[in-house]
Amino acid sequence: MLVDEQMVPENSVQQIELLTTTDDDYGGVHVEIKNSMDSNVFGDLLRASILQWRQKEGFWYHHAQPDYLMLVHWIPKTAHTLPANASHRVGIGAFVVNSKREVLVVQENSGIFKGTGVWKLPTGVVNEGEDICTAAIREVEEETGIKTEFVEVLSFMQSHKAFFTKSDLFFVCMLRPLSSEIQKQDEEIEAAQWMPIDEYSAQPFVKKILLFDSIANICLAKNDMKYTGFSPLSSTSNSGETITLYFNSEDLEQSLSSGNQA
Amino acid sequence: MLVDEQMVPENSVQQIELLTTTDDDYGGVHVEIKNSMDSNVFGDLLRASILQWRQKEGFWYHHAQPDYLMLVHWIPKTAHTLPANASHRVGIGAFVVNSKREVLVVQENSGIFKGTGVWKLPTGVVNEGEDICTAAIREVEEETGIKTEFVEVLSFMQSHKAFFTKSDLFFVCMLRPLSSEIQKQDEEIEAAQWMPIDEYSAQPFVKKILLFDSIANICLAKNDMKYTGFSPLSSTSNSGETITLYFNSEDLEQSLSSGNQA
Repeated sequence: MLVDEQMVPENSVQQIELLTTTDDDYGGVHVEIKNSMDSNVFGDLLRASILQWRQKEGFWYHHAQPDYLMLVHWIPKTAHTLPANASHRVGIGAFVVNSKREVLVVQENSGIFKGTGVWKLPTGVVNEGEDICTAAIREVEEETGIKTEFVEVLSFMQSHKAFFTKSDLFFVCMLRPLSSEIQKQDEEIEAAQWMPIDEYSAQPFVKKILLFDSIANICLAKNDMKYTGFSPLSSTSNSGETITLYFNSEDLEQSLSSGNQA
Repeated sequence: MLVDEQMVPENSVQQIELLTTTDDDYGGVHVEIKNSMDSNVFGDLLRASILQWRQKEGFWYHHAQPDYLMLVHWIPKTAHTLPANASHRVGIGAFVVNSKREVLVVQENSGIFKGTGVWKLPTGVVNEGEDICTAAIREVEEETGIKTEFVEVLSFMQSHKAFFTKSDLFFVCMLRPLSSEIQKQDEEIEAAQWMPIDEYSAQPFVKKILLFDSIANICLAKNDMKYTGFSPLSSTSNSGETITLYFNSEDLEQSLSSGNQA
């Protein structure tokens, strides 16, 4: 949407309202339209406002979502330093192990493992605005009916071009089961069961692929209490959103209690 | 772009080529256009192809980038399980500490800390397709001229609505400096220096905010060799892309060498 300033007679500026803006920390302005308005009215307001903001060159499309479009214009003569659009999808894999050294595994209805007989950890996508630990608990319950509590992030994996140009971050999470009776979801899950952990890690698809084998070894070490991952510490931002820090809390506590820290 | 099948006379199907498709693992088809073509030709091909694919209802916009638009259509009568668009931006903070217990810090030209006198760790954005460890090394060199090698991810933080509806993942990385002379980038960086690590962590903005204070304590513990984060193990996918697993390699090595693992 390039706005042609020539279309706005100079004396019209005084006759119409301007769009309400808030300044941001980067020398820009934000416009938020709270109520829907006629597109012609909006057009008039925008043209007049832009005259006011003294934007003399074109805007470009920054990114689009189903419900909005962001246009940007960089005023300084330098290269723009605007933040890029979201670059990563985020997923979780859930390592849920019970007191009988059995791990919760599934076979999926679709995807690359369909029909291979491979038993894998329940996996899923972390939604926009969703905490990793919440997503892990949700996905396990959706796929298997098992209720869990979050323990820690054991490892994470970054890969690229998982989805067109986008990259992917996959967090392997350990959860403690709070129930045992499986009720599988039929839509995505072919089968679900509790499987001896050594049987899970001995599957050929696990042994064959270095990173899958490493993840299985991490899960085994964790189950033998010989491994520490990152556990969550949640706080709340000024705007009321949850912020969660994941770190090696065991090491930090030991370090702090040894008295070397302020 | 809704395709009106009424516009395609039935007998035209035999007269024109169809778009080449590849089946995916989810019962869908992918179309890749390798060379540019006339939009009218493309329109004809698409209409005929769609007749062929027997899509009877509308497509919807899945996501857009400057250089492409993805339209999707879910054939089964169930709710769609298409992967969502990228949901997270990813950033890094770099903890670079030298043998004199000095940490590399900067003051920025813009943003919420502008003009506050606060010294912060160099930070930056991880691009699409870029490894976290590569991004950390790149950002430190861009902002300060200091060359580094990657050590490990000390912690990470997830927050929401950082950028409209998108969420944010921020990885605090430790790096070892390979040079000492600072050459700051003028565009984004107001000042850069090596600062005693205790002075950095004692700054009021650090002490005041629980998560910043935790991060500073983690950095102190790491510098005293009392903390283990996640170190990277890289592998290559079938398509030649790098996949990197980050995990507590110290714990895993100890566990494996203790002989309890297969």
